[in-house]
Amino acid sequence: MSPVVSAADRGFTLGDGVFDTALALNGKVFARERHIVRLIDAARTIGIEVDRRRIEDAIDAALTAAPAIIRTTLTRGTAARGLWPASAGAPTVLVTTSPWSPALLGQTARLVTASGRRNEFSPTANLKTLGYLDHILAAREAALAGADDALILNTQGRVACSAIANIFALVEGTLVTPPLSEGCLPGIMRALVIEMAPALGFAVAERPLLPETLAGAEAVFLTNSVRVIRAVTALDGREFAEHRAIARLAEALKARLTAECGDLPAPA
Amino acid sequence: MSPVVSAADRGFTLGDGVFDTALALNGKVFARERHIVRLIDAARTIGIEVDRRRIEDAIDAALTAAPAIIRTTLTRGTAARGLWPASAGAPTVLVTTSPWSPALLGQTARLVTASGRRNEFSPTANLKTLGYLDHILAAREAALAGADDALILNTQGRVACSAIANIFALVEGTLVTPPLSEGCLPGIMRALVIEMAPALGFAVAERPLLPETLAGAEAVFLTNSVRVIRAVTALDGREFAEHRAIARLAEALKARLTAECGDLPAPA
Repeated sequence: MSPVVSAADRGFTLGDGVFDTALALNGKVFARERHIVRLIDAARTIGIEVDRRRIEDAIDAALTAAPAIIRTTLTRGTAARGLWPASAGAPTVLVTTSPWSPALLGQTARLVTASGRRNEFSPTANLKTLGYLDHILAAREAALAGADDALILNTQGRVACSAIANIFALVEGTLVTPPLSEGCLPGIMRALVIEMAPALGFAVAERPLLPETLAGAEAVFLTNSVRVIRAVTALDGREFAEHRAIARLAEALKARLTAECGDLPAPA
Repeated sequence: MSPVVSAADRGFTLGDGVFDTALALNGKVFARERHIVRLIDAARTIGIEVDRRRIEDAIDAALTAAPAIIRTTLTRGTAARGLWPASAGAPTVLVTTSPWSPALLGQTARLVTASGRRNEFSPTANLKTLGYLDHILAAREAALAGADDALILNTQGRVACSAIANIFALVEGTLVTPPLSEGCLPGIMRALVIEMAPALGFAVAERPLLPETLAGAEAVFLTNSVRVIRAVTALDGREFAEHRAIARLAEALKARLTAECGDLPAPA
């Protein structure tokens, strides 16, 4: 039986919650501590205090040996109507899993620029909230255009992220990614790339990125916790060649994943 | 028993849906046709097609003689993970009710300006989506400041709405309210005020409204379907005197409500 939640849960009625998506291999969540800390911090930002033990236990109960995508959802719980005060009871903590396949590694993505803009002036701009509809519509736009994912600009017209990932560009030898103030999420893979890049010989900079700089970059790639790193092969029709920088980062991230979680399963 | 929804419902996992809140008196929904049309149109905008009959039936099943707030929630239904394609089954249609009291009419509101901004460049800027977290945080900010509701500006710094209502200002004898392009919802009470105002002797204009114009207005009021019309008595400490324009509009809206739905109950 699939789990249910109360129709009065504020996660359902108002999108009043946050979530996290992580990759688990051999019963271990990759970068588990970072994922849990980010989730608890995001919840606190919106005024939800949750016992860390509840999250840990729910994740542990959901883990199996099979590779899985672990989704942890955290809401303010059930309440009577009204935005605030939110006379909610205990927060809702729910962990669900979906199968993960190593075939998700090494994928590439063609992007088109979405027409809608991401709001870098929102109090939730850096939080992975339950309100994902704008990104759903961006993903729909991409699919209708025959692309794999959508580039999303912020309200100033600068690069924010894709519908499901953070974005990096190799510009004059430097890996550039928008700072959080541009409205992107503090992705765990994004943080790992920023931390690991110098030792791999790459300068890295968090700085605003114009769409034209992105289009003229030597290489562009996306990072998230499910697909880890994806080379962008096209953006609005402009094509990007393969670049060894992306391959090197992908190898380094895969090495880190297997060092922490054990071997990848053989591809099906 | 309170109803439940699948934890895999995209309304819960991704805020992938829209909703409507209406007032019902004596078993009749005020401005019912407008509410249903707006909901179906909003759903269609995000790619959810739903049989109107399902909505009508769910509302009819929920109606009682007691005055009620009728909330109709419409989501893309349950689906496997991923933003798009959304291989969802049937849309979820859920109607819930809460008690309504005539004491909600004639309330006033003190406002403070929220720090976050509403995104007029979002594809959902004019839709009442399930993603209400930014407005929840604005309402929290207002409550912490001892106010009743929050004024929300758009990313250009112009007036959009309050956390739960549309906003009007009486400026040099004209009722001014931001056009939808400023990022506000197409409120049903907003539309009624715009339509009814000329016959009551008021010029009305949908045009961008600067915060300083609002602060200098002769009168400011809020409209929504639950409280109908609320005079704003203060904005960031600046106070507004009572104004007969608001009382006249309130009387006209109440007359319309009772003409359509029958008498108000005696206050408890």
